Amino acid sequence: MSIITAGILIIGDEILSGRTKDTNANFIAKNLILAGIKLEEIRVIQDKKKIIINSVKSFSSMYSYVFTTGGIGPTHDDITAESLAEAFDKEYKINLEAFNILKNYYPNGEFNLSRQKMAKMPSDAQLIYNPLTAAPGFIIKNIYVLPGVPEIMEKMLIEVLKTIKKGAPKKIITINTNLFESTLALFLENLQIEFSECSIGSYPYFGFKNKTAGLNIVVSSWTMDSLEIIKTKIVNEIKNIGGKSNIV
Amino acid sequence: MSIITAGILIIGDEILSGRTKDTNANFIAKNLILAGIKLEEIRVIQDKKKIIINSVKSFSSMYSYVFTTGGIGPTHDDITAESLAEAFDKEYKINLEAFNILKNYYPNGEFNLSRQKMAKMPSDAQLIYNPLTAAPGFIIKNIYVLPGVPEIMEKMLIEVLKTIKKGAPKKIITINTNLFESTLALFLENLQIEFSECSIGSYPYFGFKNKTAGLNIVVSSWTMDSLEIIKTKIVNEIKNIGGKSNIV
Repeated sequence: MSIITAGILIIGDEILSGRTKDTNANFIAKNLILAGIKLEEIRVIQDKKKIIINSVKSFSSMYSYVFTTGGIGPTHDDITAESLAEAFDKEYKINLEAFNILKNYYPNGEFNLSRQKMAKMPSDAQLIYNPLTAAPGFIIKNIYVLPGVPEIMEKMLIEVLKTIKKGAPKKIITINTNLFESTLALFLENLQIEFSECSIGSYPYFGFKNKTAGLNIVVSSWTMDSLEIIKTKIVNEIKNIGGKSNIV
Repeated sequence: MSIITAGILIIGDEILSGRTKDTNANFIAKNLILAGIKLEEIRVIQDKKKIIINSVKSFSSMYSYVFTTGGIGPTHDDITAESLAEAFDKEYKINLEAFNILKNYYPNGEFNLSRQKMAKMPSDAQLIYNPLTAAPGFIIKNIYVLPGVPEIMEKMLIEVLKTIKKGAPKKIITINTNLFESTLALFLENLQIEFSECSIGSYPYFGFKNKTAGLNIVVSSWTMDSLEIIKTKIVNEIKNIGGKSNIV
């Protein structure tokens, strides 16, 4: 079974300046894993045409699906649609369906030139409908172009995910323990070698304020199910060396 | 004046799986802008040696500074230090100073082989001290290698930023208004053309629950101070067309 992969491009100077905390990447990541799609990379890039063009071209060839957020509003700094047209040698022009959706959405006289810009996109683009504020996203090749406003992006993504080819959902088990990461490190390393088709990650956490600390061991696999065997081995090892564990 | 730039590499499968929300990139971004350093890119990449090597090499040549987070713990999936050694043809070996710091930190008999791994790094690396849990980060070339646990990373970053070359702090003004983005779009576009050395961004927000909506106009510049003139122009334009504005 071949794995379906994805990359996310967050287009936005406001994330790079630290002004805005991006929440879109995490929302998309969580929904991709539920859809059995392996997210392999997230990039936050500047609102610059050359950078957007290079990024979408390389992502489009590297990953099964590409999701972009940001840069499809009505202002001069919204250059995602124009950049995508240039990246794939398409004309950048009014999409009639998008134009009519927006025209119907705005009261008479308020569908001004700036708002009409939101109907411009690469020729042959397929619309992604926007149930909240009308302005659609679009699909070109394997690239899903979504807005940056989280409430709108989230609703559009959920609809998009209903329509695309999914993989087998990734199986994941998380085991929490009070042992130190280093106590289990060698054991986990050997287990990883034994079960090379699975991925075993270990994630310590520290709560410095309330002095809690612990370790989450995350075992996951896209392609097969040795997870139960591995889980039993880890839980037994933790017990044998005097630790506590629970499945979270 | 040449601009000092930076790139951030977040190394971690747990971010790509959506399991963990990254907060490190935003923390670093906010502190870089205060230090007058322009963050140009953030990448979240997989815990894979080849990918880490390619990413640090290209970031190291593209940006003045590179900050990495994650992958320097004691377990088999912590491969950042090893990857950096390979990327820059350095030996991957015990750093004696780091070894002694860790040896002193742990009670007798608890400085096991896995923990000793945290003293291994590229030869010639310079340590970044860790005031909380001893295990140091390190500097190699223009790359600052930091841990993934936010509480620790944050303290180490603040110390690192005291030691590196900074730029002139970026000047930023944010103007909030109740007008629609599209109403101001043409005006802002022309203003951007007139003041091409500044960057004018417009960021609408929608609170669907409590039906608030508005627009933040962010004007910023690294190199000069036309900001007051631009601010006055924007505030006047908003007033002239019947909107409200305030500086935030």
